[in-house]
Amino acid sequence: MSGGLFSKIVRGEIPADILYQDDLVTAFRDVHPQAPVHVLVVPNREIPTMADVAAEDEAVLGRLLLVASRIAADEGVAARGYRLIVNCREDGGQEVPHVHLHLLGGRPLGPMLARK
Amino acid sequence: MSGGLFSKIVRGEIPADILYQDDLVTAFRDVHPQAPVHVLVVPNREIPTMADVAAEDEAVLGRLLLVASRIAADEGVAARGYRLIVNCREDGGQEVPHVHLHLLGGRPLGPMLARK
Repeated sequence: MSGGLFSKIVRGEIPADILYQDDLVTAFRDVHPQAPVHVLVVPNREIPTMADVAAEDEAVLGRLLLVASRIAADEGVAARGYRLIVNCREDGGQEVPHVHLHLLGGRPLGPMLARK
Repeated sequence: MSGGLFSKIVRGEIPADILYQDDLVTAFRDVHPQAPVHVLVVPNREIPTMADVAAEDEAVLGRLLLVASRIAADEGVAARGYRLIVNCREDGGQEVPHVHLHLLGGRPLGPMLARK
């Protein structure tokens, strides 16, 4: 059993606004949204970072992106567009050590990186 | 045959600094890098946007993320970390109508979104 925050959300031990769950991934709203739509999609299995993924994770990685695309449509942001982000470790600004894909939308998101 | 810029790179009709290619995806350096490491990973098939992906694209989507993780390791940015971004349509700031994943690393990347 994995003890991290997102694993507890996946198992229903911590409440969250779950939008989708299947055998591989779980999607829920970010509690500190940075855009009108801000959803996290995580592997159910606690993979710490993108630097830890292996060939056998290819299916779950595909599911992450496919589910993000479907949720974007459900949330009404597909036509105007959105941004998908996965941060890895310190330089990436990763804050929770469980791979998570951010779906951000609902407004123009501006440049891909902040000014240096 | 698809006629877009990235399709021409995939087919070798336009020169690019190709780092990896297999049956599903191609990775090459961005010609206008926004970070010391800036690589694009694209499906070989010309899917216009993330809003256009379907269930049968799940394998290629998984390959995009897996290959990005491997290239990050090859480029020496896995330990310090990196950011993966897929922009979709206007609000996301997508500039080329062929799905592409940005791998950005080699420096602290700052906040996930620029100030509004």
